[in-house]
Amino acid sequence: MRQQVWTYNGTVPGPLLHGRVGDLFTVRVINSSDMPHSIDFHASQISPDAAMRPIPPGGELTYSFRAEHAGIWLYHCATAPMIQHLAMGMYGAVVIDPPTLAPAEASEVLLQSEFYLGQGGGVPAMSQLLAADPNLVVFNGYANQYRSAPIHVRAGARIRLWVLDAGPSEPSAFHVVGAQFDTVFKEGGYQLRPGNAVDGAAQELDLQPGEGGFVELTLPQPGTYPVITHRLADAERGAMGSIVAGS
Amino acid sequence: MRQQVWTYNGTVPGPLLHGRVGDLFTVRVINSSDMPHSIDFHASQISPDAAMRPIPPGGELTYSFRAEHAGIWLYHCATAPMIQHLAMGMYGAVVIDPPTLAPAEASEVLLQSEFYLGQGGGVPAMSQLLAADPNLVVFNGYANQYRSAPIHVRAGARIRLWVLDAGPSEPSAFHVVGAQFDTVFKEGGYQLRPGNAVDGAAQELDLQPGEGGFVELTLPQPGTYPVITHRLADAERGAMGSIVAGS
Amino acid sequence: MRQQVWTYNGTVPGPLLHGRVGDLFTVRVINSSDMPHSIDFHASQISPDAAMRPIPPGGELTYSFRAEHAGIWLYHCATAPMIQHLAMGMYGAVVIDPPTLAPAEASEVLLQSEFYLGQGGGVPAMSQLLAADPNLVVFNGYANQYRSAPIHVRAGARIRLWVLDAGPSEPSAFHVVGAQFDTVFKEGGYQLRPGNAVDGAAQELDLQPGEGGFVELTLPQPGTYPVITHRLADAERGAMGSIVAGS
Repeated sequence: MRQQVWTYNGTVPGPLLHGRVGDLFTVRVINSSDMPHSIDFHASQISPDAAMRPIPPGGELTYSFRAEHAGIWLYHCATAPMIQHLAMGMYGAVVIDPPTLAPAEASEVLLQSEFYLGQGGGVPAMSQLLAADPNLVVFNGYANQYRSAPIHVRAGARIRLWVLDAGPSEPSAFHVVGAQFDTVFKEGGYQLRPGNAVDGAAQELDLQPGEGGFVELTLPQPGTYPVITHRLADAERGAMGSIVAGS
Repeated sequence: MRQQVWTYNGTVPGPLLHGRVGDLFTVRVINSSDMPHSIDFHASQISPDAAMRPIPPGGELTYSFRAEHAGIWLYHCATAPMIQHLAMGMYGAVVIDPPTLAPAEASEVLLQSEFYLGQGGGVPAMSQLLAADPNLVVFNGYANQYRSAPIHVRAGARIRLWVLDAGPSEPSAFHVVGAQFDTVFKEGGYQLRPGNAVDGAAQELDLQPGEGGFVELTLPQPGTYPVITHRLADAERGAMGSIVAGS
Repeated sequence: MRQQVWTYNGTVPGPLLHGRVGDLFTVRVINSSDMPHSIDFHASQISPDAAMRPIPPGGELTYSFRAEHAGIWLYHCATAPMIQHLAMGMYGAVVIDPPTLAPAEASEVLLQSEFYLGQGGGVPAMSQLLAADPNLVVFNGYANQYRSAPIHVRAGARIRLWVLDAGPSEPSAFHVVGAQFDTVFKEGGYQLRPGNAVDGAAQELDLQPGEGGFVELTLPQPGTYPVITHRLADAERGAMGSIVAGS
């Protein structure tokens, strides 16, 4: 089965941008498709009028912004109907590290999103998108990809997982089987840090579409630790992966 | 197309009540409809038995409470089936300012809710309500109203948006395109304040039905900034608006 | 009407485990059914490979873990399809008290979950589970059970409600009618504590499936205070109960 997608630079999700608070980003977008598209960087504070304007087929646009705040920020096509452009694959992430980010031995970025399959692999009907009943729910563009090709880390190492829910409509209840999060950073602030007074840890990072953050964890022993959204109706649609901890 | 609604004082949402911690509210509810209704103020701590009792057609009730805690609190009809009375329009908000609320040049209150259209504009079937598949998702009672009649503010001004998700069933992933929230107050506590040590900001305020809070932001340049829930299946149903920043 | 369930120890939810940070839990699981099952304790940090392996019919397994972090942690069968085993009733909770837990006169544990009714009371079709359109949404295994048999407390007493959303797919917007939460502990951390500087309180504890926490409240006067999820489509399916405050 084949499904058409619309992309930034040929991949779903689009390229990951990564920087620090204060960095200047300059992105040149060339529309080589046959319909208008655009780009909306949540990482920017900017008037949408010019920056997010529709780029006609063959046109281009330069979008410049300085990263003012830490977090993992969605970017996506903002051309109407926005739900369609995002569902077809036009989204990605900008990670802006907080100034005092603790060291981690491994760091991964996982974007959860939904696919709605159109008839004959074409554009899905708006009714499918509005029903929020996706055919696939995926991490980084492929159903179950990290089950076939797991993420590898070292048992006992502190690892950081940046997670962004690109939607367009489903929440994420991000969970790693066998692990607990002693650090949770969500939408610009720490919800949990190691050594907190109540000895607490989190079993999940919950996100609505368009939200993101990171968690930190240590896989205590060698083994295979599944990664899922605990909204199991979505996990069973492909939002499952694995992290393999080696010795 | 016309849709019947049930209201407090003739509007959906009902009147906005606004006060401070310690204020005494006394609300007289006269039921001039032909069916029993009631009122449940989340802003109150009170035994439901008398205060929230069904008011028969032609009857009345006086509901008194002292605001003990800051926040934006839902009120709604609590007569069974509650989902029906709320979906038909019987809800509103009480805003209780925290004692140390920082000054803002503009402040708006936005209530997100769902409409389910009944046959011939009448009361929707319970099956529609239980499916949580609304026909419209709206801010302050009208689909897309702030696209036709935007909120006006001054570019560079600090603005505060109080947001309450009245439901009855859909979450909100409240977002302003082109802006970031340096302040997030949700359900009685600050999640984010300006000048935090990690330079963080939020792209959204996430709410389950019945929750609320406020965000603060500054629109950096003159322009038109869309306001949406980033659960795009709901945004496309009418939960879109605009804030226009003037120079 | 009868519905088959799959259980740990014959009840839905399974037995509640309760301890403190540092406690060692040793659980022996004997599979006396005719299909493979397993157990995944979110309260543990452990390689899933051996601990969560499928136990064949007639087999057994001993699962040992030391509670390292406070919170209310889901446990559930992790045998594929996981959504089916959880929806059929194979879940429960482990409560690990934070070290400095304030005294409360009463403490209850409420697990929200969904039932999907299969044809003839058998196993529901995967399509029903994936549609996340449950027939019943329940607290502690029975629709509306605390309406028939309310929880009893004393008016004016501080009470603590531990809440876990077992899912498999629906969020919870946990609310007590007539009451406000001055304390909210979610996923390992306090979001709100009494006497906070902004006089805030919460009307809800919001949870995605697999998340949990506790709230504290005082029912101000004698009376009957309904307990619901304010996602009303789920409340109307049975996620309603009552707390009766006596004098």
